[in-house]
Amino acid sequence: MGFISQTPDPPYYAVIFTSVLKEWGVPSYQETANKMGQLVQDVEGFLGVESVRIGKNGITISYWKNKETIEQWKRNLEHQIAQEKGKSIWYESYQVRVVHVEKSYGKFQAL
Amino acid sequence: MGFISQTPDPPYYAVIFTSVLKEWGVPSYQETANKMGQLVQDVEGFLGVESVRIGKNGITISYWKNKETIEQWKRNLEHQIAQEKGKSIWYESYQVRVVHVEKSYGKFQAL
Repeated sequence: MGFISQTPDPPYYAVIFTSVLKEWGVPSYQETANKMGQLVQDVEGFLGVESVRIGKNGITISYWKNKETIEQWKRNLEHQIAQEKGKSIWYESYQVRVVHVEKSYGKFQAL
Repeated sequence: MGFISQTPDPPYYAVIFTSVLKEWGVPSYQETANKMGQLVQDVEGFLGVESVRIGKNGITISYWKNKETIEQWKRNLEHQIAQEKGKSIWYESYQVRVVHVEKSYGKFQAL
């Protein structure tokens, strides 16, 4: 699986999640992040994810069919517990931006 | 300056640029990336940037007042030369997504 998500032609939605961890390398954070990464794969309307973290700073972009499927994932019970822990324990700061993808172009080479 | 951009309340625009370099640590790439990062600061309509690269994989999100200011930056002469080099020399693959930011919320702590 490549780093760049092979999303359909626009329009579709995305969630940009930019975050700064309080501490780098906390195992409970990494476990939860991995679990959420697995769980989201089976959610209706999920189109793909791109994620990079270096030290405390991370950007994760998830791609979605529409706004409703984003809301559904936000309300997922396991995800809600993870969100609460994120707010109270792991993140020093974060920003969530819900965006409508209007245009997309690029250069893709199969690996 | 913190990692997370302090953007105004939505609506505004963003460009999600996801890329995979052919090679890691090419000096001419890094110089150009730094130069573009400087240059864009003074462009009308530019609201901020968030960027992470680990090894070959990178995500850079730039925030913009509207679509017109994105188009203007895309047409900037030095930026066009950089874009051409990116396509032909540095990037194995990349994707540009122009998005409309509809909603934004988060937790911010001044550092």
